[in-house]
Amino acid sequence: MKCKRCQIPAVVALPSHHTAFCKDCFLVFARRLVERAIKEHAMFTFDDRILVAISGGKDSLALSWQLKDLGYNIEGLHIDLGIPESSPIARAYAERFCTVSEIPLHVIETAKLGLAMCDVKRRVKRPICSVCGQTKRYLFNKFAQENGFTVLATGHNLDDETSRLFANVMRWDVEFLSDQGPVMHAEKGFAKKVKPLFRLTEFETANLCFLAGIDYGYAPCPYSSKASFPIYKNLLADLEDIQPGRKIRFYDGFLKDGRQGFAPRGETSVDIQPCTTCGYPTSAGECGYCRLTALMNDEG
Amino acid sequence: MKCKRCQIPAVVALPSHHTAFCKDCFLVFARRLVERAIKEHAMFTFDDRILVAISGGKDSLALSWQLKDLGYNIEGLHIDLGIPESSPIARAYAERFCTVSEIPLHVIETAKLGLAMCDVKRRVKRPICSVCGQTKRYLFNKFAQENGFTVLATGHNLDDETSRLFANVMRWDVEFLSDQGPVMHAEKGFAKKVKPLFRLTEFETANLCFLAGIDYGYAPCPYSSKASFPIYKNLLADLEDIQPGRKIRFYDGFLKDGRQGFAPRGETSVDIQPCTTCGYPTSAGECGYCRLTALMNDEG
Repeated sequence: MKCKRCQIPAVVALPSHHTAFCKDCFLVFARRLVERAIKEHAMFTFDDRILVAISGGKDSLALSWQLKDLGYNIEGLHIDLGIPESSPIARAYAERFCTVSEIPLHVIETAKLGLAMCDVKRRVKRPICSVCGQTKRYLFNKFAQENGFTVLATGHNLDDETSRLFANVMRWDVEFLSDQGPVMHAEKGFAKKVKPLFRLTEFETANLCFLAGIDYGYAPCPYSSKASFPIYKNLLADLEDIQPGRKIRFYDGFLKDGRQGFAPRGETSVDIQPCTTCGYPTSAGECGYCRLTALMNDEG
Repeated sequence: MKCKRCQIPAVVALPSHHTAFCKDCFLVFARRLVERAIKEHAMFTFDDRILVAISGGKDSLALSWQLKDLGYNIEGLHIDLGIPESSPIARAYAERFCTVSEIPLHVIETAKLGLAMCDVKRRVKRPICSVCGQTKRYLFNKFAQENGFTVLATGHNLDDETSRLFANVMRWDVEFLSDQGPVMHAEKGFAKKVKPLFRLTEFETANLCFLAGIDYGYAPCPYSSKASFPIYKNLLADLEDIQPGRKIRFYDGFLKDGRQGFAPRGETSVDIQPCTTCGYPTSAGECGYCRLTALMNDEG
């Protein structure tokens, strides 16, 4: 198989795009998908101060590498979740990558806030993935706002996005469907959030890491085995095998034709107010993060 | 395994409903699902003259049997499509069933209209499933209207409905999504159409036939192997195995929360006019059926 651009032997086949590439041409291809995502959705410009959520996994490192390579003004934030089986490995990858790439990296240790996830899991009855996600969103948002970042970028790829969309469609969760997308605009105390990798599949971000020489960590969270998204990821992967390009068409079609149907008609029913304890935007009196912190301190 | 209602040995397990039934209780269960569909969606009453589309397959026979058993005023219409490999078998099952069940059966032979599907397939470049579906919808609708039937009932089951819904969602086909459902109201020359089996899976209609002693035909259309719905049916079946009840929740959720988002906002863009040749409602000057007939006669 030959590279479709330069005709030398290909190293990556991409049936979804009816193409195959050598190393250099794949890197051009991936870069253009990221540039297209950024421009098409007005994610940010070279004037923005971008905070990248860096877990140490392939997606966040691929994103950081690509944005740095494109010349954007980025810094990283790693949240050390305090899970003995995976957090030290993930953190080491994040730190090593940022040192080599000369990307400033900030680290927040949830254990220092009384929220080591291994403890939280023991105490809290809600699914741990939900609590952990809420905590990360809170801390990323707070850090971005308090430190003058104009946008927060995460490494969500096409598989993440389509499996989440699929889950929301299966439940017809109108609220989630109405604001799913590669950009969430800043409003009411929330930082602007963007997903510049949303056009790349997981396979493509893994290839980007491999071909760009990025040493990424594989430290799967020991708590996430029961999440339902992997089921949908596998199902969409099966569908993609039969219908190459299905995932991106499903997602692009949603953005173009589907999402508008779920936009609130008239007044929205959710009333966002500042948290009575910390000021973070919330629909309840005290936000979920503060309630979690209180619970962990009370029962600690 | 015991019947959940009467505790004698069960003959059917239904994980989606967390239950299992003996023969008699399964038949009660199936009947109630049909009654629920009819009432919940105001499909018809005992005063209606109901035309049932009878292909001779399990779904149309199960539907006819159930409606007759419930005491509704039904007649059948079988369309003999002129496909040598399958049509004679299907027709024989339809005729035998209606004779035994004392249901008046009307038969239209498309060959007599110049539209034997084996000939159409050779001449027409469009996918044959699309042409055949269009022809059947035309003839069922025309027959219902010309013969004073107030409603047209088809045997679409939950698997048909969810796989179609899934296909429409995958493409975000807003027009199809806006009017998918178990009832299409009479308007602009279209008869009212209903799907009383939409709460029963294919497995359940097959069991209904088996347990009610209905001798149904298995004469798969030789032309339908390339249709994409079977892919989605299999995929949803896999999902149902993992998440029992997923299919009905997906469909009910769509009817409750999803569909309204796709309803036309303001004026609809499709302008329906009577066909210039036959008067059938169409968006073009001459309807698809008349164009097909003209093509087949011209080139015949």
